[in-house]
Amino acid sequence: MLEALKQAVLEANLELDRRGLVTYTWGNVSGIDRASGILAIKPSGVDYADLRAEDMVLVDLDGNVVEGKYRPSSDTPTHIELYKAFPKCGGVAHTHSPLATSWAQAGRSIPCYGTTHADYFHGPVPCARSLTRAEVEEAYEKNTGVVIAETFRDLDPVAVPGVLCRNHGPFTWGKDAAQAVYHAVVLEEVAKMARFTENLNDTAAPAPDYVIEKHYLRKHGPGAYYGQK
Amino acid sequence: MLEALKQAVLEANLELDRRGLVTYTWGNVSGIDRASGILAIKPSGVDYADLRAEDMVLVDLDGNVVEGKYRPSSDTPTHIELYKAFPKCGGVAHTHSPLATSWAQAGRSIPCYGTTHADYFHGPVPCARSLTRAEVEEAYEKNTGVVIAETFRDLDPVAVPGVLCRNHGPFTWGKDAAQAVYHAVVLEEVAKMARFTENLNDTAAPAPDYVIEKHYLRKHGPGAYYGQK
Amino acid sequence: MLEALKQAVLEANLELDRRGLVTYTWGNVSGIDRASGILAIKPSGVDYADLRAEDMVLVDLDGNVVEGKYRPSSDTPTHIELYKAFPKCGGVAHTHSPLATSWAQAGRSIPCYGTTHADYFHGPVPCARSLTRAEVEEAYEKNTGVVIAETFRDLDPVAVPGVLCRNHGPFTWGKDAAQAVYHAVVLEEVAKMARFTENLNDTAAPAPDYVIEKHYLRKHGPGAYYGQK
Amino acid sequence: MLEALKQAVLEANLELDRRGLVTYTWGNVSGIDRASGILAIKPSGVDYADLRAEDMVLVDLDGNVVEGKYRPSSDTPTHIELYKAFPKCGGVAHTHSPLATSWAQAGRSIPCYGTTHADYFHGPVPCARSLTRAEVEEAYEKNTGVVIAETFRDLDPVAVPGVLCRNHGPFTWGKDAAQAVYHAVVLEEVAKMARFTENLNDTAAPAPDYVIEKHYLRKHGPGAYYGQK
Repeated sequence: MLEALKQAVLEANLELDRRGLVTYTWGNVSGIDRASGILAIKPSGVDYADLRAEDMVLVDLDGNVVEGKYRPSSDTPTHIELYKAFPKCGGVAHTHSPLATSWAQAGRSIPCYGTTHADYFHGPVPCARSLTRAEVEEAYEKNTGVVIAETFRDLDPVAVPGVLCRNHGPFTWGKDAAQAVYHAVVLEEVAKMARFTENLNDTAAPAPDYVIEKHYLRKHGPGAYYGQK
Repeated sequence: MLEALKQAVLEANLELDRRGLVTYTWGNVSGIDRASGILAIKPSGVDYADLRAEDMVLVDLDGNVVEGKYRPSSDTPTHIELYKAFPKCGGVAHTHSPLATSWAQAGRSIPCYGTTHADYFHGPVPCARSLTRAEVEEAYEKNTGVVIAETFRDLDPVAVPGVLCRNHGPFTWGKDAAQAVYHAVVLEEVAKMARFTENLNDTAAPAPDYVIEKHYLRKHGPGAYYGQK
Repeated sequence: MLEALKQAVLEANLELDRRGLVTYTWGNVSGIDRASGILAIKPSGVDYADLRAEDMVLVDLDGNVVEGKYRPSSDTPTHIELYKAFPKCGGVAHTHSPLATSWAQAGRSIPCYGTTHADYFHGPVPCARSLTRAEVEEAYEKNTGVVIAETFRDLDPVAVPGVLCRNHGPFTWGKDAAQAVYHAVVLEEVAKMARFTENLNDTAAPAPDYVIEKHYLRKHGPGAYYGQK
Repeated sequence: MLEALKQAVLEANLELDRRGLVTYTWGNVSGIDRASGILAIKPSGVDYADLRAEDMVLVDLDGNVVEGKYRPSSDTPTHIELYKAFPKCGGVAHTHSPLATSWAQAGRSIPCYGTTHADYFHGPVPCARSLTRAEVEEAYEKNTGVVIAETFRDLDPVAVPGVLCRNHGPFTWGKDAAQAVYHAVVLEEVAKMARFTENLNDTAAPAPDYVIEKHYLRKHGPGAYYGQK
């Protein structure tokens, strides 16, 4: 069942690898079929080179495996929390890409220093708080998602499609699995440039609000004029 | 019409991608036919892998599309201002290459620390001032070009074929589209080395004037002796 | 003799090169057959492109060449000390990978800043002390191994499968040659991210103990649930 | 004439490009036939992709072109000075590789922080002094070589086969053109690691003398035991 979804999720996982964001089996991508409430996700710890569409694991929003011969990614409960908290989210990607992970390890949100950032993330990419000992021991992966949702209590997850999990790494999302991966690639570029920017000017300020606004809206606003109709 | 120009502009756009300066569809290159006052430019938001010569959009210096089935790059008004301000300019390239963009985000001109820089840019690569809110709201892309022209009021755009747009990224130019891309590649290398230089010596000084002069002139002066006759 | 071991050690050496951890002939990998107490190791100074399984040199734990037409790696005495000191170790890898080597040159252990590190190394990756002049002059390569063993007097080499040799570079190990290389690749990623982390936050703290514990145990503990059964 | 030398010099130039040390036409390699006192060198400003053995230019030690349809590299007078000053030198390479060039731009010698450096350069890689205005105006490229020779007045160019030319970039050399390129690759790695080392420890000290001595001698001393007999 959901063969097209499994194929799309496979492609998104392979794209993550092709874009150089992955070492060994690190990282995972999922996509959801909102009608049935079932998501397809990468199996845990399987080589990217060996992945096929039929290896994608189908899981419902209670975490039950619906179809698949493999165990789903150990991060599946995080993905589920994101699908529950963000109703417009159709795909989720998690990586250990080096720069985004380093901002997460530094415990810092990424300031919006320029238009490359503003074209995709409408403001800083937030760094979520650390999980408490109790949260880790009770249900680590689920609570990772709960803390991300908490971070977005006053943020629009469509306008800021990514987060840094403290001491861990980034999660990104989008309308489908492919866009979640796209945002993971952009986030890594943005994280890289923000580090360079601070190296070059230790009092660097974020881009002016009206520039951020302009760039975000020319791509995503009602009068967007970037790209083709 | 202008088939040779469209082919040359296609090649220059593909070269930008091959040289690793491009993520997804970021960046754009144009070239102008000075006789007719018509420029060919990359369409907005189309994948590099899919680009063909006939996809290049022909635009006149008033911004009217003369030929082409796609919308031109959203940065077209910036290109147009550069062609108007710099009469010897035959091609323009815009990228979000990481180091040049980071200097732009840091709001700093790139000092001429050595001969690699001096071989192509006769002095610092300037960082233009921020656009005002009014300039952004009135005509963002056009005014980006106007502010670049303002930056070069007392500079020779042939001797310094590039600029950093604050909080945005670099524009480079040259006698044609291919040379504009060549300068984009050199600018990224120069931006990378200048960061390393400051990292290794936080009181690093620019190269002596007479070294900069010598290197620039042995390639570009009347008695140039670099390369073949 | 030990054809399968020689083949596995060849593959591990080639993998080191494919993963980009090697410049020219730098680096070497060995694997041991515990039943016979014989290890297979890369020959000294031979190009990776030319290596074949029959070029691997068989050496016993007293350092005698048992089979092979080449001299074994000059670091063979270090490998031997590690096999003697760590009874569960089945493979050893040595590289000059740039980031791990730089931490070694800086004389610093790598703090555990996040889950990428904690997934493979249960705590900091230690930097061993410098060898004394006497130790270098007496038996440099052997004493390199002796000092590594000394560093692990109170550490479990299975939980922390790597070390930095001061002013030299990393050694990693594992249950076999392939896993030793795997740990060399992970160590380089971890070393890279730790540098970025400190660069972004000069008061960055290690990840909380309970996060490190959780990540290590979900992969390696008795109730491990990462990967497939 | 000297067909084998031209072929070897071609291969060395192509290797420089394959190893990623070259942007566009930057860099050049030569090799000398000591019997005739004639060197073969890359032509100036020709694409690496187009180079053939017959394009190498033959030049004598007075700078006269002996054979070849192209102009020799504009850096030829520097190469000639090195062959005159260093009688055991059989090949010379010049690059603008980013890290070595950045140390040159920073005006700093590269300290010997570890064994990767000590295996090839017996002590710091020196940064030569700036040329004076008079030296630049009189004979820039020749005097670049003269100042390198001055830098090695009390240094052995066989034990330290490279130098940084202030505000310019590195020159390396060796027994032939291939080894000069080999040293250029090693120098770039060493320059990269030395920068990381200082980033990680701003009071990092060079490796102990007895370690440097040991590593250099085990590869290059009378009792060398690295590599095959």
